[in-house]
Amino acid sequence: MNTKEIVTPSQLLELWQGHRRLTRKVIEAFPEEKLFTYSVGGMRSFADLAMEMINVATPGIKGLVSGKWDNIGSEKTPPTKKELLAKWDETTSLINQSWPQLKIERLQQVEKALNMYEAPNYWTLFYFIDNEVHHRGQGYVYLRSLGIEPPPFWER
Amino acid sequence: MNTKEIVTPSQLLELWQGHRRLTRKVIEAFPEEKLFTYSVGGMRSFADLAMEMINVATPGIKGLVSGKWDNIGSEKTPPTKKELLAKWDETTSLINQSWPQLKIERLQQVEKALNMYEAPNYWTLFYFIDNEVHHRGQGYVYLRSLGIEPPPFWER
Repeated sequence: MNTKEIVTPSQLLELWQGHRRLTRKVIEAFPEEKLFTYSVGGMRSFADLAMEMINVATPGIKGLVSGKWDNIGSEKTPPTKKELLAKWDETTSLINQSWPQLKIERLQQVEKALNMYEAPNYWTLFYFIDNEVHHRGQGYVYLRSLGIEPPPFWER
Repeated sequence: MNTKEIVTPSQLLELWQGHRRLTRKVIEAFPEEKLFTYSVGGMRSFADLAMEMINVATPGIKGLVSGKWDNIGSEKTPPTKKELLAKWDETTSLINQSWPQLKIERLQQVEKALNMYEAPNYWTLFYFIDNEVHHRGQGYVYLRSLGIEPPPFWER
Protein backbone atom coordinates (compact mmCIF):
# COMPACT_ATOMS: atom_id res chain seq x y z
CA MET A 1 0.00 0.00 0.00
CA ASN A 2 1.18 3.50 -0.78
CA THR A 3 1.60 5.01 2.67
CA LYS A 4 1.03 8.44 1.19
CA GLU A 5 -2.58 7.60 0.44
CA ILE A 6 -5.22 9.36 2.51
CA VAL A 7 -7.69 6.60 1.75
CA THR A 8 -7.38 3.56 -0.49
CA PRO A 9 -9.95 2.69 -3.16
CA SER A 10 -11.25 -0.28 -1.18
CA GLN A 11 -11.56 1.85 1.96
CA LEU A 12 -13.50 4.47 0.01
CA LEU A 13 -15.83 1.81 -1.39
CA GLU A 14 -16.39 0.55 2.14
CA LEU A 15 -17.11 4.11 3.36
CA TRP A 16 -19.73 4.53 0.64
CA GLN A 17 -21.27 1.10 1.11
CA GLY A 18 -21.22 1.59 4.89
CA HIS A 19 -23.30 4.72 4.41
CA ARG A 20 -25.53 2.84 2.00
CA ARG A 21 -26.08 0.05 4.54
CA LEU A 22 -27.14 2.64 7.10
CA THR A 23 -29.50 4.31 4.62
CA ARG A 24 -31.01 0.89 3.91
CA LYS A 25 -31.69 0.51 7.64
CA VAL A 26 -33.39 3.92 7.65
CA ILE A 27 -35.64 2.83 4.77
CA GLU A 28 -36.49 -0.30 6.75
CA ALA A 29 -37.23 1.71 9.90
CA PHE A 30 -40.15 3.54 8.27
CA PRO A 31 -43.60 2.04 8.54
CA GLU A 32 -44.68 0.99 5.03
CA GLU A 33 -47.16 3.79 4.47
CA LYS A 34 -45.16 6.58 6.10
CA LEU A 35 -42.18 5.78 3.90
CA PHE A 36 -44.17 7.01 0.90
CA THR A 37 -46.42 9.66 2.41
CA TYR A 38 -44.76 11.24 5.42
CA SER A 39 -42.54 14.31 5.39
CA VAL A 40 -41.84 17.48 7.35
CA GLY A 41 -41.85 21.05 6.04
CA GLY A 42 -43.33 20.17 2.65
CA MET A 43 -40.29 18.11 1.70
CA ARG A 44 -40.21 14.85 -0.26
CA SER A 45 -41.02 11.50 1.35
CA PHE A 46 -38.07 9.36 2.41
CA ALA A 47 -38.93 6.91 -0.36
CA ASP A 48 -38.54 9.73 -2.90
CA LEU A 49 -35.25 10.80 -1.30
CA ALA A 50 -33.97 7.21 -1.39
CA MET A 51 -35.05 6.91 -5.03
CA GLU A 52 -33.06 10.06 -5.80
CA MET A 53 -30.00 8.39 -4.25
CA ILE A 54 -30.53 5.39 -6.55
CA ASN A 55 -31.08 7.66 -9.56
CA VAL A 56 -27.78 9.38 -8.76
CA ALA A 57 -25.69 6.33 -7.89
CA THR A 58 -26.70 4.16 -10.85
CA PRO A 59 -25.58 6.48 -13.67
CA GLY A 60 -23.02 7.90 -11.22
CA ILE A 61 -20.89 4.80 -10.82
CA LYS A 62 -21.14 4.11 -14.55
CA GLY A 63 -19.93 7.63 -15.37
CA LEU A 64 -17.12 7.54 -12.82
CA VAL A 65 -15.83 4.28 -14.22
CA SER A 66 -16.29 4.90 -17.94
CA GLY A 67 -16.26 8.67 -18.41
CA LYS A 68 -19.55 8.25 -20.28
CA TRP A 69 -22.08 10.26 -18.32
CA ASP A 70 -25.78 9.65 -18.58
CA ASN A 71 -28.26 12.11 -17.12
CA ILE A 72 -29.47 11.58 -13.58
CA GLY A 73 -31.93 8.67 -13.59
CA SER A 74 -35.61 9.34 -13.96
CA GLU A 75 -36.88 6.08 -12.57
CA LYS A 76 -40.05 6.54 -10.51
CA THR A 77 -40.22 5.53 -6.86
CA PRO A 78 -41.63 2.01 -6.67
CA PRO A 79 -44.86 1.64 -4.71
CA THR A 80 -43.70 -0.72 -1.93
CA LYS A 81 -40.84 -0.85 0.57
CA LYS A 82 -39.96 -4.31 -0.68
CA GLU A 83 -39.50 -3.09 -4.24
CA LEU A 84 -37.58 -0.02 -3.10
CA LEU A 85 -35.21 -2.21 -1.09
CA ALA A 86 -34.79 -4.49 -4.10
CA LYS A 87 -33.78 -1.48 -6.24
CA TRP A 88 -31.45 -0.42 -3.44
CA ASP A 89 -29.79 -3.82 -3.42
CA GLU A 90 -29.44 -3.82 -7.22
CA THR A 91 -27.54 -0.54 -6.94
CA THR A 92 -25.37 -1.98 -4.17
CA SER A 93 -24.37 -4.85 -6.46
CA LEU A 94 -23.81 -2.53 -9.41
CA ILE A 95 -21.45 -0.36 -7.35
CA ASN A 96 -19.55 -3.39 -6.03
CA GLN A 97 -19.22 -4.91 -9.50
CA SER A 98 -18.17 -1.64 -11.13
CA TRP A 99 -15.74 -0.42 -8.48
CA PRO A 100 -12.73 -2.60 -9.44
CA GLN A 101 -12.84 -1.01 -12.92
CA LEU A 102 -12.54 2.51 -11.51
CA LYS A 103 -9.07 3.81 -12.36
CA ILE A 104 -7.73 6.09 -9.64
CA GLU A 105 -6.25 8.48 -12.21
CA ARG A 106 -9.82 9.22 -13.33
CA LEU A 107 -10.68 10.75 -9.96
CA GLN A 108 -8.58 13.86 -10.62
CA GLN A 109 -10.14 14.41 -14.06
CA VAL A 110 -12.71 17.16 -14.45
CA GLU A 111 -15.91 16.06 -16.13
CA LYS A 112 -19.53 17.13 -16.32
CA ALA A 113 -21.00 14.56 -13.95
CA LEU A 114 -24.51 13.43 -14.88
CA ASN A 115 -24.23 16.15 -17.56
CA MET A 116 -24.96 18.64 -14.76
CA TYR A 117 -21.99 19.34 -12.49
CA GLU A 118 -18.56 20.21 -13.87
CA ALA A 119 -16.11 19.05 -11.19
CA PRO A 120 -13.17 16.74 -10.58
CA ASN A 121 -14.47 13.19 -10.31
CA TYR A 122 -13.28 12.77 -6.70
CA TRP A 123 -15.46 15.76 -5.80
CA THR A 124 -18.39 14.20 -7.63
CA LEU A 125 -17.93 10.91 -5.80
CA PHE A 126 -17.89 12.66 -2.42
CA TYR A 127 -20.89 14.66 -3.60
CA PHE A 128 -22.84 11.43 -4.17
CA ILE A 129 -21.95 10.23 -0.66
CA ASP A 130 -22.60 13.60 1.00
CA ASN A 131 -25.92 14.03 -0.79
CA GLU A 132 -26.99 10.67 0.64
CA VAL A 133 -25.82 11.58 4.17
CA HIS A 134 -27.64 14.93 3.87
CA HIS A 135 -30.95 13.41 2.85
CA ARG A 136 -30.62 10.50 5.25
CA GLY A 137 -30.19 13.03 8.07
CA GLN A 138 -33.55 14.41 6.97
CA GLY A 139 -35.01 10.91 7.22
CA TYR A 140 -33.82 10.83 10.83
CA VAL A 141 -35.95 13.90 11.55
CA TYR A 142 -38.96 12.27 9.88
CA LEU A 143 -38.48 9.14 12.01
CA ARG A 144 -38.01 11.11 15.24
CA SER A 145 -41.11 13.18 14.55
CA LEU A 146 -42.98 9.88 14.02
CA GLY A 147 -41.74 8.75 17.44
CA ILE A 148 -39.44 6.12 15.91
CA GLU A 149 -35.84 5.75 17.11
CA PRO A 150 -33.55 5.84 14.04
CA PRO A 151 -30.63 3.40 13.69
CA PRO A 152 -27.40 4.71 15.33
CA PHE A 153 -25.46 6.97 12.97
CA TRP A 154 -22.14 5.33 13.71
CA GLU A 155 -23.28 1.76 12.98
CA ARG A 156 -22.66 0.92 9.38
CA MET B 1 1.14 15.37 -7.58
CA ASN B 2 0.89 11.67 -7.12
CA THR B 3 -1.56 10.69 -9.85
CA LYS B 4 -2.51 7.64 -7.81
CA GLU B 5 -4.08 9.80 -5.14
CA ILE B 6 -7.83 9.71 -4.83
CA VAL B 7 -7.84 13.10 -3.18
CA THR B 8 -4.94 15.32 -2.12
CA PRO B 9 -4.63 16.77 1.40
CA SER B 10 -5.43 20.28 0.19
CA GLN B 11 -8.47 19.00 -1.71
CA LEU B 12 -9.69 17.21 1.39
CA LEU B 13 -9.23 20.35 3.50
CA GLU B 14 -11.23 22.27 0.91
CA LEU B 15 -13.99 19.61 0.97
CA TRP B 16 -14.24 19.92 4.74
CA GLN B 17 -14.07 23.71 4.78
CA GLY B 18 -16.56 23.85 1.91
CA HIS B 19 -18.99 21.89 4.05
CA ARG B 20 -18.19 24.14 6.99
CA ARG B 21 -18.91 27.25 4.91
CA LEU B 22 -22.29 25.80 4.00
CA THR B 23 -23.05 24.95 7.63
CA ARG B 24 -22.15 28.53 8.56
CA LYS B 25 -24.72 29.76 6.03
CA VAL B 26 -27.32 27.44 7.61
CA ILE B 27 -26.57 28.93 11.05
CA GLU B 28 -26.99 32.39 9.54
CA ALA B 29 -30.28 31.44 7.88
CA PHE B 30 -32.00 30.79 11.23
CA PRO B 31 -33.83 33.66 12.89
CA GLU B 32 -31.91 34.50 16.11
CA GLU B 33 -34.41 33.00 18.52
CA LYS B 34 -35.28 29.91 16.45
CA LEU B 35 -31.61 28.98 16.21
CA PHE B 36 -31.63 28.26 19.94
CA THR B 37 -35.19 27.12 20.57
CA TYR B 38 -36.60 25.46 17.47
CA SER B 39 -36.44 21.79 16.63
CA VAL B 40 -38.55 18.98 15.20
CA GLY B 41 -39.29 15.61 16.78
CA GLY B 42 -37.80 16.50 20.18
CA MET B 43 -34.31 16.86 18.71
CA ARG B 44 -31.66 19.41 19.66
CA SER B 45 -31.75 23.00 18.38
CA PHE B 46 -29.53 23.79 15.41
CA ALA B 47 -27.33 25.91 17.69
CA ASP B 48 -26.73 22.83 19.85
CA LEU B 49 -26.01 20.71 16.77
CA ALA B 50 -23.55 23.33 15.48
CA MET B 51 -21.91 23.50 18.91
CA GLU B 52 -21.48 19.71 18.77
CA MET B 53 -19.68 20.13 15.44
CA ILE B 54 -17.33 22.65 17.07
CA ASN B 55 -16.83 20.40 20.09
CA VAL B 56 -15.87 17.57 17.72
CA ALA B 57 -13.71 19.53 15.28
CA THR B 58 -11.62 21.41 17.83
CA PRO B 59 -10.15 18.42 19.71
CA GLY B 60 -10.58 16.45 16.47
CA ILE B 61 -8.09 18.35 14.36
CA LYS B 62 -5.67 18.48 17.29
CA GLY B 63 -5.86 14.71 17.74
CA LEU B 64 -5.55 13.97 14.02
CA VAL B 65 -2.42 16.10 13.78
CA SER B 66 -0.71 15.15 17.04
CA GLY B 67 -2.01 11.72 17.99
CA LYS B 68 -2.90 13.19 21.40
CA TRP B 69 -6.62 12.83 21.77
CA ASP B 70 -8.65 14.92 24.15
CA ASN B 71 -12.22 14.02 24.91
CA ILE B 72 -15.00 15.58 22.84
CA GLY B 73 -15.35 19.24 23.89
CA SER B 74 -17.86 20.16 26.54
CA GLU B 75 -18.16 23.82 25.74
CA LYS B 76 -21.71 25.09 26.15
CA THR B 77 -23.63 26.64 23.29
CA PRO B 78 -23.15 30.41 23.45
CA PRO B 79 -26.34 32.45 23.83
CA THR B 80 -26.26 34.48 20.60
CA LYS B 81 -25.85 33.75 16.91
CA LYS B 82 -23.02 36.27 16.77
CA GLU B 83 -21.05 34.42 19.44
CA LEU B 84 -21.79 31.04 17.88
CA LEU B 85 -20.53 32.30 14.50
CA ALA B 86 -17.41 33.67 16.22
CA LYS B 87 -16.72 30.21 17.72
CA TRP B 88 -17.35 28.71 14.30
CA ASP B 89 -14.81 31.04 12.72
CA GLU B 90 -12.24 30.27 15.43
CA THR B 91 -12.58 26.58 14.58
CA THR B 92 -12.21 27.37 10.88
CA SER B 93 -8.91 29.13 11.59
CA LEU B 94 -7.73 26.36 13.88
CA ILE B 95 -8.36 23.73 11.19
CA ASN B 96 -6.61 25.82 8.52
CA GLN B 97 -3.61 26.47 10.75
CA SER B 98 -3.32 22.87 11.90
CA TRP B 99 -3.86 21.17 8.56
CA PRO B 100 -0.35 21.66 7.10
CA GLN B 101 1.05 19.72 10.11
CA LEU B 102 -1.16 16.70 9.40
CA LYS B 103 1.09 13.93 8.12
CA ILE B 104 -0.65 11.76 5.57
CA GLU B 105 0.89 8.59 7.04
CA ARG B 106 -1.11 9.28 10.20
CA LEU B 107 -4.40 8.81 8.36
CA GLN B 108 -3.93 5.07 8.08
CA GLN B 109 -3.09 4.68 11.78
CA VAL B 110 -5.73 3.28 14.09
CA GLU B 111 -6.37 5.37 17.20
CA LYS B 112 -9.12 5.94 19.71
CA ALA B 113 -10.43 9.23 18.39
CA LEU B 114 -11.70 11.60 21.09
CA ASN B 115 -11.05 8.64 23.41
CA MET B 116 -14.30 7.18 22.09
CA TYR B 117 -14.03 5.67 18.61
CA GLU B 118 -11.29 3.18 17.72
CA ALA B 119 -10.80 3.59 13.98
CA PRO B 120 -8.24 4.47 11.34
CA ASN B 121 -7.75 8.23 11.36
CA TYR B 122 -8.99 8.66 7.78
CA TRP B 123 -12.25 7.07 8.90
CA THR B 124 -12.42 9.44 11.86
CA LEU B 125 -11.83 12.46 9.64
CA PHE B 126 -14.62 11.41 7.29
CA TYR B 127 -16.76 10.74 10.34
CA PHE B 128 -16.30 14.35 11.46
CA ILE B 129 -17.34 15.60 8.02
CA ASP B 130 -20.25 13.14 7.66
CA ASN B 131 -21.53 13.92 11.16
CA GLU B 132 -21.68 17.58 10.17
CA VAL B 133 -23.45 16.83 6.87
CA HIS B 134 -25.91 14.58 8.76
CA HIS B 135 -26.83 17.21 11.33
CA ARG B 136 -26.84 20.02 8.81
CA GLY B 137 -29.37 18.04 6.78
CA GLN B 138 -31.50 18.07 9.90
CA GLY B 139 -31.12 21.86 10.05
CA TYR B 140 -32.52 21.99 6.51
CA VAL B 141 -35.69 20.30 7.76
CA TYR B 142 -35.96 22.77 10.64
CA LEU B 143 -35.60 25.69 8.21
CA ARG B 144 -38.13 24.27 5.73
CA SER B 145 -40.63 23.65 8.49
CA LEU B 146 -40.13 27.30 9.53
CA GLY B 147 -40.93 28.31 5.94
CA ILE B 148 -37.32 29.40 5.30
CA GLU B 149 -35.51 28.37 2.09
CA PRO B 150 -32.16 26.81 3.06
CA PRO B 151 -28.98 27.68 1.15
CA PRO B 152 -28.41 25.40 -1.89
CA PHE B 153 -26.64 22.17 -0.89
CA TRP B 154 -24.18 22.32 -3.80
CA GLU B 155 -22.96 25.87 -3.07
CA ARG B 156 -19.96 25.77 -0.80
